[in-house]
Amino acid sequence: MSQYRVLIDANDEKGLVYKVSTIFFEMHLNILSNNEFVDKENNKFFMRSVVDGDIDKKKLTEMLNAVLPESASVKVIEPKKKNIIIMATKELHALGDILIRSESGELEANILAVISNYDVLESVVKKFNIPYVTISHEGLTRPEHEAKIIESIKSFGDVDYIVLAKYMRILNPGFVDAFKDKIINIHHSFLPAFIGANPYKQAYDRGVKIIGATAHFVNNNLDEGPIIAQEIKHVNHDYGWKDMQRSGRDVEKIVLSRALNLALEDKIFVHANKTVIF
Amino acid sequence: MSQYRVLIDANDEKGLVYKVSTIFFEMHLNILSNNEFVDKENNKFFMRSVVDGDIDKKKLTEMLNAVLPESASVKVIEPKKKNIIIMATKELHALGDILIRSESGELEANILAVISNYDVLESVVKKFNIPYVTISHEGLTRPEHEAKIIESIKSFGDVDYIVLAKYMRILNPGFVDAFKDKIINIHHSFLPAFIGANPYKQAYDRGVKIIGATAHFVNNNLDEGPIIAQEIKHVNHDYGWKDMQRSGRDVEKIVLSRALNLALEDKIFVHANKTVIF
Amino acid sequence: MSQYRVLIDANDEKGLVYKVSTIFFEMHLNILSNNEFVDKENNKFFMRSVVDGDIDKKKLTEMLNAVLPESASVKVIEPKKKNIIIMATKELHALGDILIRSESGELEANILAVISNYDVLESVVKKFNIPYVTISHEGLTRPEHEAKIIESIKSFGDVDYIVLAKYMRILNPGFVDAFKDKIINIHHSFLPAFIGANPYKQAYDRGVKIIGATAHFVNNNLDEGPIIAQEIKHVNHDYGWKDMQRSGRDVEKIVLSRALNLALEDKIFVHANKTVIF
Amino acid sequence: MSQYRVLIDANDEKGLVYKVSTIFFEMHLNILSNNEFVDKENNKFFMRSVVDGDIDKKKLTEMLNAVLPESASVKVIEPKKKNIIIMATKELHALGDILIRSESGELEANILAVISNYDVLESVVKKFNIPYVTISHEGLTRPEHEAKIIESIKSFGDVDYIVLAKYMRILNPGFVDAFKDKIINIHHSFLPAFIGANPYKQAYDRGVKIIGATAHFVNNNLDEGPIIAQEIKHVNHDYGWKDMQRSGRDVEKIVLSRALNLALEDKIFVHANKTVIF
Repeated sequence: MSQYRVLIDANDEKGLVYKVSTIFFEMHLNILSNNEFVDKENNKFFMRSVVDGDIDKKKLTEMLNAVLPESASVKVIEPKKKNIIIMATKELHALGDILIRSESGELEANILAVISNYDVLESVVKKFNIPYVTISHEGLTRPEHEAKIIESIKSFGDVDYIVLAKYMRILNPGFVDAFKDKIINIHHSFLPAFIGANPYKQAYDRGVKIIGATAHFVNNNLDEGPIIAQEIKHVNHDYGWKDMQRSGRDVEKIVLSRALNLALEDKIFVHANKTVIF
Repeated sequence: MSQYRVLIDANDEKGLVYKVSTIFFEMHLNILSNNEFVDKENNKFFMRSVVDGDIDKKKLTEMLNAVLPESASVKVIEPKKKNIIIMATKELHALGDILIRSESGELEANILAVISNYDVLESVVKKFNIPYVTISHEGLTRPEHEAKIIESIKSFGDVDYIVLAKYMRILNPGFVDAFKDKIINIHHSFLPAFIGANPYKQAYDRGVKIIGATAHFVNNNLDEGPIIAQEIKHVNHDYGWKDMQRSGRDVEKIVLSRALNLALEDKIFVHANKTVIF
Repeated sequence: MSQYRVLIDANDEKGLVYKVSTIFFEMHLNILSNNEFVDKENNKFFMRSVVDGDIDKKKLTEMLNAVLPESASVKVIEPKKKNIIIMATKELHALGDILIRSESGELEANILAVISNYDVLESVVKKFNIPYVTISHEGLTRPEHEAKIIESIKSFGDVDYIVLAKYMRILNPGFVDAFKDKIINIHHSFLPAFIGANPYKQAYDRGVKIIGATAHFVNNNLDEGPIIAQEIKHVNHDYGWKDMQRSGRDVEKIVLSRALNLALEDKIFVHANKTVIF
Repeated sequence: MSQYRVLIDANDEKGLVYKVSTIFFEMHLNILSNNEFVDKENNKFFMRSVVDGDIDKKKLTEMLNAVLPESASVKVIEPKKKNIIIMATKELHALGDILIRSESGELEANILAVISNYDVLESVVKKFNIPYVTISHEGLTRPEHEAKIIESIKSFGDVDYIVLAKYMRILNPGFVDAFKDKIINIHHSFLPAFIGANPYKQAYDRGVKIIGATAHFVNNNLDEGPIIAQEIKHVNHDYGWKDMQRSGRDVEKIVLSRALNLALEDKIFVHANKTVIF
């Protein structure tokens, strides 16, 4: 008996659920959970099923592809720990939250390495027996720096997700394209407000009563990738911008970990710069 | 072309989605939305689909019943305004919120009448051209009082839901049984905390930092029916219990209206003293 | 025995609390509540006290002014219902929420009138015996239209606050200046995101997971006045922009009423395009 | 120049603010922040001020005591890292959150030791160079076990707070009395609901739509001590009780750390089994 996560997206048309459930029924698969969504604006169908039964992954994929229209993308995934690499700069809170989850055994991922442009976090990461790679950006152009990072990432083998746990540098298109829909960033504001540098200072100057954080996939427009999760916290006039920043860290780490978990459980579809999350 | 909401629950077994979607496919029905859930603990399957196509309601119901197991309950519902009766005592906020929604045209219901044991709210209800019936409980036993209310309710014809918008009296089993899973109550606390009288005073005495409200179906155990929706609000030491009460009213009215809307959209299944909400 | 709300702001310097509390002590005033805040960035002191005792308002004001520095602004306010005028366009939810609060007796305000550029809401407002004035903008320039509104407002006598309950037109500097820090608006987004027209459509297009609303004082930069209150609601991919809009209405009305109540209780200081709220 | 946190509580009477601010003024102290609250029900006055100036702590305490009534309790505290001991059982999330905050330098405390009845968490705690003491309860009566823990705690010198980071055993009155208002516990439910064992199972069985966590001081009535902070998270029918538990851990750790920070900043007064928090 194997368990699979089946992810299908296709141009919407009549009979898609019928076709998929017919395959499941004929192959004696048990449906453990099932979600569908139709994005009417884009005429797009999304379905995620968790099934178990006696069938091999390749055969199930083929059978589904055989009945589904050409526009369909079919993924059949065995639940297992994914490989992630975390990129950070100097702040520990978001990275630390992931490290503790990993240590508790609640993270469905192997942390292959932490890569940073500073060595500040090296000692704490090494406590957890996780490789730490410092790749300073000093004296390098951005493309040179990123080429070195990509080289380092590749040296760790297959990577499912790259998690930017407060990695404070903008990534070039070359980097982003190399890991399409695989880079998860935490932005320290309630996007699309306060894009760019020092959002807590911006929020303070505007006198907001709520601060937030946004986890999103990274695309080539800074801070404009598909949003995965957002959360907020009420503040008041008594918060200086450093208080907002301190207080915002809890929001950041929780939101990033929530988004990472959704990705690790294969619950996210990306389409038209948005996410569908089951 | 007709649109239907199809609600199915059944003991879980393989092939239920297949059987239902086969009917939809063969009848050329278009699936507009689709949700399923399996309660593994109780081995129970729940499915809600919205479909449109050329078929009459009776035929669709028969076809679904023909393929589904005996344990299945099938409801095929045409979306239209439901009939509700609101019961209140003296407080306006929850009732008023529903009146305004009705007036705005955003409530998918006809308010047949407001019934109260006091006449305090009569003048405001009449402004909205809604019948107001005062049935005082004075000098009556509880069963006598409720018999009169039931008689009044029945005089308005078929009723889909009875909404207790701060109706401050306990209902007898006779009343509850007459409207099983049709009575929606708002309880002014975050159930199951602070069951019973004056929950805000109880909350204040306990020194809580959060107050809440709970909308639930009414069953024969006071405050213990299936929960539909809950919401909370942060408070602090500066709130006396009357401040909590005042502040709690916003939570109460929003939660009650949210629960009512879910019921009006046929999105709630009740099973094992819980709700499944799509 | 009279009760007063004493609001003081001044450039910060040593001894302000001492000076104020000395007056309170010498005049045998009882402090019922007391809040202070120092905005260090702007070197500004804010204090709000509620006191009771045997002293007339004018004398108390004079005594406080006598000991406080020249930069100080002193307001001594008797708690009583304030006069408000509500401006609306066609949507009822925010206006209706205030009407119901008024009817319940929980609003510390007299609603002098509702003014709108359409007559859509006239029948519901008149149910509450509140004057409704339709001032169509058709065929008028914006200044001409606003001149007529100002004239209408003035005809109702002294007005403490003007509440824009989804008044969907931009106000000119002339109007804003006439009622400085007296116009409270509800903006249907989590400002500063989605400034301008149709913020729910903008939010939908961006794929946000949270929508919000912002109550703020109106100044001459559209959507940029001092923020009073903000609140949010989680949404997901299943929300079309009209669902966001419908769902956002609950947030809008709650936030606007919360901001209005803060104003009616004299709890808001405005300074440097921000609010200090006790 | 020294900075002090001045905490005063007293039976309420006229002139308390005047008396305190007179001392501050005469001693040329600068008030950085100031909060007062009067609990009218209990006729109790609370005040917390942060001041700086040239005065020694002992003298300031004496001067305040000299002018204040006998009922007054005066604490003058220099801001500095406090000493804490953490007690845990087998779960890492709440403890881990504190360890990471400590490592980041954002915790205003020295963690003297972690004490547990199991050795499960020893390896991770030692990574942070913090002493870990395993004191098994096996074969010991509860008083014997607690006597050993008290002995161990005392061996680390003066302790300001004991943090129960998911320490899953009930404490005897002897233990609680030894550290009155110094033991902070995180209870994995929204107290007062679901008191006792396995609250997530209880919450699941009740079909709640919200789960929560409560940080509170420990007194001799289990789960009934003064509440410091509470937070919640929305759940739905799709959450089994283990999902609620997993999902609740984030709430638990954030609430416990928030409560701990409030204690470390001397922002909490305890009175009449409630907290006043500035």
